[in-house]
Amino acid sequence: MTTRNILLGIAYDGTNFCGWQRQPRERTVQGTIEEALSTLCRAPIQIHGTSRTDAGVHALGQQATFSLDSGIPTERIPLALNHLLAGGQRVIGAIGDIRILSATEVPASFHARFDAKGKRYHYRIHTGGEPDLFQRNYCYYVEKELDLAAMKQAAGMIVGTRDFKCFQAAGGQEQKTTVRTIHHIELQQEGSLLTLKVTGDGFLYNMVRILTGTLVEVGLGRRTPAGIPDMISSLDRARAGHTAPPQGLYLAEVFFK
Amino acid sequence: MTTRNILLGIAYDGTNFCGWQRQPRERTVQGTIEEALSTLCRAPIQIHGTSRTDAGVHALGQQATFSLDSGIPTERIPLALNHLLAGGQRVIGAIGDIRILSATEVPASFHARFDAKGKRYHYRIHTGGEPDLFQRNYCYYVEKELDLAAMKQAAGMIVGTRDFKCFQAAGGQEQKTTVRTIHHIELQQEGSLLTLKVTGDGFLYNMVRILTGTLVEVGLGRRTPAGIPDMISSLDRARAGHTAPPQGLYLAEVFFK
Repeated sequence: MTTRNILLGIAYDGTNFCGWQRQPRERTVQGTIEEALSTLCRAPIQIHGTSRTDAGVHALGQQATFSLDSGIPTERIPLALNHLLAGGQRVIGAIGDIRILSATEVPASFHARFDAKGKRYHYRIHTGGEPDLFQRNYCYYVEKELDLAAMKQAAGMIVGTRDFKCFQAAGGQEQKTTVRTIHHIELQQEGSLLTLKVTGDGFLYNMVRILTGTLVEVGLGRRTPAGIPDMISSLDRARAGHTAPPQGLYLAEVFFK
Repeated sequence: MTTRNILLGIAYDGTNFCGWQRQPRERTVQGTIEEALSTLCRAPIQIHGTSRTDAGVHALGQQATFSLDSGIPTERIPLALNHLLAGGQRVIGAIGDIRILSATEVPASFHARFDAKGKRYHYRIHTGGEPDLFQRNYCYYVEKELDLAAMKQAAGMIVGTRDFKCFQAAGGQEQKTTVRTIHHIELQQEGSLLTLKVTGDGFLYNMVRILTGTLVEVGLGRRTPAGIPDMISSLDRARAGHTAPPQGLYLAEVFFK
């Protein structure tokens, strides 16, 4: 039996997890998947995810690689894992809060984090009207209507290759550089739901949430699009906006080299 | 200060509650609202809800009455209670899993349960395609496509004033009669979401969930619309369909005399 390197596509509802990264005595996405995989393959398995999402943050397309010595056919892994992740229950309609979307064999050297060349995050904002309690874990509720045109103008001033230190929260991993490239920021409004789609080559700690908080402040008229370039060149976190809450954030897609 | 009788309109996400009814050492909707109201009014308060929804069942329009001796203006009750129900937090975007939609002064003799003359429940089914993990607590996932025309035909045979004993689960309160009137059953399909709207003068224990399970079996071709009248007249729970899971069920509206 040869060793295979497997890439998993993963979606999860981050509400009831203390984030992605394995921690003793906490329920995390990585820890939960590793436990199910280790049960399935009858050997301890460690997985390497592209992004270490924070507590409450969701994923539509997280990616993770792991090394597999078991004989289980690659294509059977999603169904078998999803069954374990739903608690192995035969309850009608039981769905777990993690779903394995795909399993693919990849070359031995491939690594979900080191071979990622970019990511797209979505941030969902519910603006105006009454809060929707069924959406409380899935979007950021902003009571007032937002000025979408001003937000789009500000977003246009963020796109590019820049030193985004002003969008970096304390507490993340040490970074060699705080220069990143943001390729696109799309803002789409459908009814009361405003979705930001941010694509870049990499993101600093809490970068999408601070970027979103800053754009929300522009939308509320509390800061102007014209102030964005100075804010960025200040490299000062205190000059940027508030950190939007985790429940609106989704890791949507990972791009590989 | 005179005593007022107050009617609350209430929505909740039933996911993290052991149902409506107050129970020692369990988190229930009634218990949680009573606790917040007692804090707000600085006196123990008991509320009387129209419907004792089960664990996992949601409400868009539950109603409850209570007697109030405090001087707080009626119109301030929703905002004050919602603040307490969200944990009194000043966290950005914090929304609790109960929302008080309205507070209205009603005549002293008015009672949310005894004066209800009917209710509408919604039941949400996600049919076909992949399960949506973000909807796992908010609808019933049925993997196969359902035959909507057959379900509508069967629904038409259920509407009316009948002895619905076949739709009554064991374990509920003793009932004087199992005759009920179902005024309407609407089935609306929007994309992969099928919503049943069931309006009636009253419902037996688990009636909407068993009725829904029966219609799902018709939709799957496991039973025929033609078999519905015999099933009803058998008065036999074992002849009806399975009990659809609680997470798809919503108490949508209460009608008063």
